[in-house]
Amino acid sequence: MDRYDIAIIGSGPAGLSAAINAVIRNKKVILFGSDNLSNKLLKAPKINNYLGIYDVSGKELKEKFLEHLKYMNIEIKNEKVNSVYSMGDYFALSLNQKMYEATSIIIASGVEFSKPLNGEDELLGKGVGYCATCDAPLYKGKTVAIVGYTKEAEEEANYVSELAGKLYYIPMYKDKVSLKEVIEVVEDKPISILGKDKVSGLQMSKGEINTDAVFIIKDSVSPGKLVPGLLMNGEHIAVDIDMKTNIEGCFAAGDCAGRPYQYIKSAGQGQIAALSAVSYIDKIKLNKKII
Amino acid sequence: MDRYDIAIIGSGPAGLSAAINAVIRNKKVILFGSDNLSNKLLKAPKINNYLGIYDVSGKELKEKFLEHLKYMNIEIKNEKVNSVYSMGDYFALSLNQKMYEATSIIIASGVEFSKPLNGEDELLGKGVGYCATCDAPLYKGKTVAIVGYTKEAEEEANYVSELAGKLYYIPMYKDKVSLKEVIEVVEDKPISILGKDKVSGLQMSKGEINTDAVFIIKDSVSPGKLVPGLLMNGEHIAVDIDMKTNIEGCFAAGDCAGRPYQYIKSAGQGQIAALSAVSYIDKIKLNKKII
Repeated sequence: MDRYDIAIIGSGPAGLSAAINAVIRNKKVILFGSDNLSNKLLKAPKINNYLGIYDVSGKELKEKFLEHLKYMNIEIKNEKVNSVYSMGDYFALSLNQKMYEATSIIIASGVEFSKPLNGEDELLGKGVGYCATCDAPLYKGKTVAIVGYTKEAEEEANYVSELAGKLYYIPMYKDKVSLKEVIEVVEDKPISILGKDKVSGLQMSKGEINTDAVFIIKDSVSPGKLVPGLLMNGEHIAVDIDMKTNIEGCFAAGDCAGRPYQYIKSAGQGQIAALSAVSYIDKIKLNKKII
Repeated sequence: MDRYDIAIIGSGPAGLSAAINAVIRNKKVILFGSDNLSNKLLKAPKINNYLGIYDVSGKELKEKFLEHLKYMNIEIKNEKVNSVYSMGDYFALSLNQKMYEATSIIIASGVEFSKPLNGEDELLGKGVGYCATCDAPLYKGKTVAIVGYTKEAEEEANYVSELAGKLYYIPMYKDKVSLKEVIEVVEDKPISILGKDKVSGLQMSKGEINTDAVFIIKDSVSPGKLVPGLLMNGEHIAVDIDMKTNIEGCFAAGDCAGRPYQYIKSAGQGQIAALSAVSYIDKIKLNKKII
């Protein structure tokens, strides 16, 4: 398997700034994100506080970022990273159907503003999961509920419906859903996940669904769940001023690394994270030569 | 005396980013620096690592920054701050012939790459100084040497020559000097400042100058000397991730706050420093109302 120098998770200002800086330093980079870059950026009506660029909408700033990526020949992988495991001198990244390897990682996945459901943390791995396609084989012929925060979750639902005995889909967005007919769409708000040792149901505001599994599909997995062992500081990743986390070779930048939630702050931290990762990689390569 | 909410020292990317963010938050800001913004920026041949702006020279990036300032109606005060004193709930800033007051300060003065001369730290305040115009009256009729690192030092020399009995000027740059005829220009390198309890001379590489005072005039005063009591971390100001220093109400950003020395890192930290200063000021104002 090809090993990348740096895997960057997230395509907001922090991830993009990390990517251009790492590429300038001649590192082999893989950047996971979305062609939309960042939903938050897209919705910004007017931005004046990004030094050097003023009087622009979020969409216009997004276009400038995309032009910059194009100029540097940097592509965005439209794939969602589900988990990252530290393997000593490299990291293994698990995606829906693939694995990647990288010497270092930069987490720039933003912040999720939605709180976990009641029971979500307690039943994680006992029927609660964040990657329906990964775990679907475990629920062959059984009942599954998918809580989808983004339209992309529909794709996972369509795939899972081929294996599950019964599939409920709960859309948490306003767009019209387009799903296979066998899937039952529930237009109601989930309150808590039920079950003691394993999931038995999903309590909705107007009733209850009996199910063996609940998958919660968001834009990004929360960092503490993405990288087992990652030290958090409340809802943010604990970082030092060089954007180092508690795991060697793992760096973080942008909203996920703390407030303020601002574009140029994130871009600045992305740059710092990239340069810290570069020196980490160079040190590892030098050590290997010496040994 | 008018009191500003935030005084920003330095007009590189950190200072400018702090200024636009503070102004957007409706704070009364004074920004000290130079219309050139930053000598380092001016000399950059090509910049590709500032997310959103690519394939530009330092001069072009400088023009974009100046346009942004103009759009926000922010002016740069072309004056050099010599010292900052913490007065409890505000700061007093001492300039060549003026004083200013501000509730909070942001130091974004960059890094000086030149080391202190031998004896400079030991004889500081005992004949060694950084503001010739401030201290000139102390040396009426006496001998003074000025070590000038920038062409602007010539102005100070011309002023001091009216008071000093004898003035030596040692230019540390390559531009032609234009000084009053009474000033003796010494084209030689200073090595160390001589004297035990007070300055007695200046050892040059090819000889010795007898003098009562040595003034060292650089673009900026080093932060530890600018703000008495400021905690340093080696040659950088010690800051936390919110850009706070050890002195309440005093923040730092950019090169002076540590490596890497990069533009968008500095701009990001300038933003963080401004937002930290804003919440500090709001807290102080709220406390005053309550009392």
